[in-house]
Amino acid sequence: MDKKKNISMAVIRRLPKYHRYLGDLMKNDVDRISSKELSEKIGFTASQIRQDLNCFGDFGQQGYGYNVSELYSQICNILGLVKLYKTVIIGAGNIGQAIANYTGFEKLGFELKSIFDVNPKLIGLRIRDIEIKDIDYLPDFLKENTIDIGIICVPSINAQKVCDILVKNGVKGIWNFAPVDLVVPDDVKVEGVHLSDSLLILSCLLNDME
Amino acid sequence: MDKKKNISMAVIRRLPKYHRYLGDLMKNDVDRISSKELSEKIGFTASQIRQDLNCFGDFGQQGYGYNVSELYSQICNILGLVKLYKTVIIGAGNIGQAIANYTGFEKLGFELKSIFDVNPKLIGLRIRDIEIKDIDYLPDFLKENTIDIGIICVPSINAQKVCDILVKNGVKGIWNFAPVDLVVPDDVKVEGVHLSDSLLILSCLLNDME
Repeated sequence: MDKKKNISMAVIRRLPKYHRYLGDLMKNDVDRISSKELSEKIGFTASQIRQDLNCFGDFGQQGYGYNVSELYSQICNILGLVKLYKTVIIGAGNIGQAIANYTGFEKLGFELKSIFDVNPKLIGLRIRDIEIKDIDYLPDFLKENTIDIGIICVPSINAQKVCDILVKNGVKGIWNFAPVDLVVPDDVKVEGVHLSDSLLILSCLLNDME
Repeated sequence: MDKKKNISMAVIRRLPKYHRYLGDLMKNDVDRISSKELSEKIGFTASQIRQDLNCFGDFGQQGYGYNVSELYSQICNILGLVKLYKTVIIGAGNIGQAIANYTGFEKLGFELKSIFDVNPKLIGLRIRDIEIKDIDYLPDFLKENTIDIGIICVPSINAQKVCDILVKNGVKGIWNFAPVDLVVPDDVKVEGVHLSDSLLILSCLLNDME
């Protein structure tokens, strides 16, 4: 684990895919796999895989390949999936509701503790038994509850304001769905999902073919 | 535009951000901007910006900077935002409904033509006046209507099957929300949004701090 601090963002971005494929192999009772076989499944080159996995320990043995469960548990470790994360959603519009309704994140260890919105029509409603609360109560809620990740699903114009409240009250992880680049201190980590950006990349690729 | 074919994926992935920032500058009536000023706003280095923008034409003049509206319209051009795209959503669950409800994509030129699902409880319902249709009707619908982009929001296990129907019926763009890697012919472009992967990257970053 000593090597962990040096893992580049490029490698980190590939880790969830390793996690997904190795999880499937475990489900199919595969005990070990060579970098070549893994390469055929996952689509990275065998050399890339060896390089990536070498970043965080000495796995693969020449002529034996990787021990799947050992590698999987090490990747879970690096991804931080060995503990639970408490989350809140701010913004109970389309995307906020979709995320609140999706139970898959909980299976990975991300527990939704509360949902906040400004809209009086939404406040008091429940999504999977979690009540939507008035956003005015957010600072107090964060003082009373330790929250690891704030999921920002408000319109762009309010995203930085919401982010500032989260950061001020000790939230260190921000999952941002608003198409803006948030300003945070160094000890706060932001990961963004920009749906429009993703759609534009697709239209660019389509346009490129013509 | 001759240079366009050579634009790397890394540059393409940055283009939506240029599009977003230049759009804001236009709204604020900014006529021109230097790579240094743009760098301060957008967070890429000035040298990176000059390199990126040089990929698709001769903009910026020494000592003058970039003509904002000219650059914006060229980026729109490269992103393929000079025409309309017809889309269908397959899977009217949480994320499918969220996307169907979001009107922002239409403003960019992506028009939702229909929504399909297998669930009899959903079939016949309407989202923003668009009826959810039985997925059995998808092949016929695609034969009768030219669709540019299929938005896959079905569970992983059904995603490749849906993708195959889309591809077989001439859809060239796939926007994939299922956490699987789809197999498509070379002339079909896939852009994926893997929400769980994004959340795992965040937990990895949080874990890395400790």
